[in-house]
Amino acid sequence: MSELDEFLKSGRNQVRRIPTRGHYDRETVYAVLDAGFLCHVGFVAESQPYVIPTLYGRDGDDLFLHGAASSRMLRNLDRNGQVCLTVTHVDGLVLARSAFHHSMNYRSAVVFGTAQLVTDAQVKEHGLFVISEQVLAGRWDESRPPNSKELKATSVLRLTIEQASAKIRVGPPSDETEDYNLPIWAGVVPMTNRFGAPIPDPQLDRAIPVAPSVAGLEADIG
Amino acid sequence: MSELDEFLKSGRNQVRRIPTRGHYDRETVYAVLDAGFLCHVGFVAESQPYVIPTLYGRDGDDLFLHGAASSRMLRNLDRNGQVCLTVTHVDGLVLARSAFHHSMNYRSAVVFGTAQLVTDAQVKEHGLFVISEQVLAGRWDESRPPNSKELKATSVLRLTIEQASAKIRVGPPSDETEDYNLPIWAGVVPMTNRFGAPIPDPQLDRAIPVAPSVAGLEADIG
Repeated sequence: MSELDEFLKSGRNQVRRIPTRGHYDRETVYAVLDAGFLCHVGFVAESQPYVIPTLYGRDGDDLFLHGAASSRMLRNLDRNGQVCLTVTHVDGLVLARSAFHHSMNYRSAVVFGTAQLVTDAQVKEHGLFVISEQVLAGRWDESRPPNSKELKATSVLRLTIEQASAKIRVGPPSDETEDYNLPIWAGVVPMTNRFGAPIPDPQLDRAIPVAPSVAGLEADIG
Repeated sequence: MSELDEFLKSGRNQVRRIPTRGHYDRETVYAVLDAGFLCHVGFVAESQPYVIPTLYGRDGDDLFLHGAASSRMLRNLDRNGQVCLTVTHVDGLVLARSAFHHSMNYRSAVVFGTAQLVTDAQVKEHGLFVISEQVLAGRWDESRPPNSKELKATSVLRLTIEQASAKIRVGPPSDETEDYNLPIWAGVVPMTNRFGAPIPDPQLDRAIPVAPSVAGLEADIG
């Protein structure tokens, strides 16, 4: 792997606890980011940390966030320098024989950078498209596009990844040697996020078929 | 509702965007916290915000976190004063006719307070029990309890809720009046977190039946 494919490692993004679970290559970090659309973004305002759930979209090393132009979160993100953005997927409960060795299977990505308000109109609309595609591919082209009033009421931020790391745990529990003989069930209970059957808007004309973007989720619908 | 049942509202925890989605009563905040076990905890170290996914357990207004005694996160949480702890459940994609009115159905809770290292041995073990119960009720009593070496290697933090708010969106999309005639599918795609069929540890004696705690998940297993 070339150096360009790895994020720079330093104290800030280095995985210290169980370093074998840490990954710094773009491919792994991107995969964790691309598997979700909800992040928790952290910023500091007057010495107080805030952690806010919000949607994101990734385009290369750029992450786009959006919100109301009047949003306190977006104003603070733009104003307050360093940001930490985290995405986590829980894949399962890891049940060991000892309470101590219980764990989770998960994939998480922690991203560091600064967030800038996007002022260029074309980049702004591109950012909104990227977020929309991340949430539901194809939906943007099905929807009535934003008009100038709506664009004015919306702010878009771009966070270019300065550093990042991913942390991943997979597989069965790991117990102390002497505990393997205990008569205690051990294993993994997988967890997945599933889509349910779409619920049409009560005001929807029932002659309108379900959108292709939604029909495309069918394989994931439980 | 008595004043005691509400968290104090101030600039820090006040929901500003769409304030009708904001809740400050204990019952609502507790319900969001109790529906999960993974939080994103934010703290500041040398002006840098960090957002770290971790397990939690709630006991009244106390939230317990745990980790390796050597954990940077726990040391920083104990050392760095104010903490923000956020729990988010995504309940569905809200697909409007206009790109602008797309939204999510979700429940989130944002908690503020300071985190203290628990030094009392009994409280520490209680904190571990509370976290374990939050993840999987009944599992603690099925497991081999922690020994003194394991307890020494584990730190527990207690974060007493100083302020909190919940933010909840439910229901169908809300479009501009003139958009309701557009031939665009609109509605909600529900999302749920499901447990899968338990996977026994490859080293498990197959004569051992699945644990009651896991069997109890069955209704939620997809």
